[in-house]
Amino acid sequence: MITVKHCTAEDIPDIYRLMKGLAEFEKMSDALTIDEKGLERLMTEEKAFEALLAYEDGKAVGLALYYFYMLSTFSGRRVLYLEDIFVDEEYRKKGTGRLLMQELINEARARGCIKMEWKCLKWNENAVRFYEKLGAEISPDWLTFTLKEDKF
Amino acid sequence: MITVKHCTAEDIPDIYRLMKGLAEFEKMSDALTIDEKGLERLMTEEKAFEALLAYEDGKAVGLALYYFYMLSTFSGRRVLYLEDIFVDEEYRKKGTGRLLMQELINEARARGCIKMEWKCLKWNENAVRFYEKLGAEISPDWLTFTLKEDKF
Repeated sequence: MITVKHCTAEDIPDIYRLMKGLAEFEKMSDALTIDEKGLERLMTEEKAFEALLAYEDGKAVGLALYYFYMLSTFSGRRVLYLEDIFVDEEYRKKGTGRLLMQELINEARARGCIKMEWKCLKWNENAVRFYEKLGAEISPDWLTFTLKEDKF
Repeated sequence: MITVKHCTAEDIPDIYRLMKGLAEFEKMSDALTIDEKGLERLMTEEKAFEALLAYEDGKAVGLALYYFYMLSTFSGRRVLYLEDIFVDEEYRKKGTGRLLMQELINEARARGCIKMEWKCLKWNENAVRFYEKLGAEISPDWLTFTLKEDKF
């Protein structure tokens, strides 16, 4: 039995533990410079993100962390941006990721979003297939540019 | 003489006119469903974006529209997201785009951003070259997925 709930500040330890799992999975542990306190401040004071946790047998095994930003002045409608999604390795392939995505879709619909958006590592072929099965697409028309702070 | 200024609500008519120019240029005029009033509400009440205008001879000829969103819980630092950038066709190749980008970089630095991000149409080769000259890059590692509302 898998359940999904919306997080409050008391869930920060579970959120942080799953973020660490994601960082390891992405081979990006060095990039995880924030600590639990910083994460809590972002969530409560800055209201910079919201989060879902998926539970199996009372244990938090999946995380989705997201926020809303504006799509474009063209429509004036918001986008649900999914920053992090992760399911503990030993709890995968049981539909937990699917449940998290479905709840995110419900959120996006409830808030009147025009779309959802996220990034995925190219080598994560399981994730690419999972997203494509949901109907998600990689735009053939648009390129995503970044300018890192060392170029400022 | 080109100057750049930070916008207030009184600049909405100029912002909207340049947005219309951008929508035409991108062959996306049908997507421009917001009106001036909606745009003003987004800017003032929701504080959903900030904007720069570039002036030549007292006329607003360039626009950059942007906002800050969180990069990632990993660093807890923000990204300057550039939603729209546009320079009137007859005023191009005079450094206006460069000036707007430089002011955006100043903003990103002042706000402690870890990077800037934006999207660019693939066929807009002039823009792609311009961005690459600034040191911007298209990530070789990450894919950008979208899930549109008709798939919710």
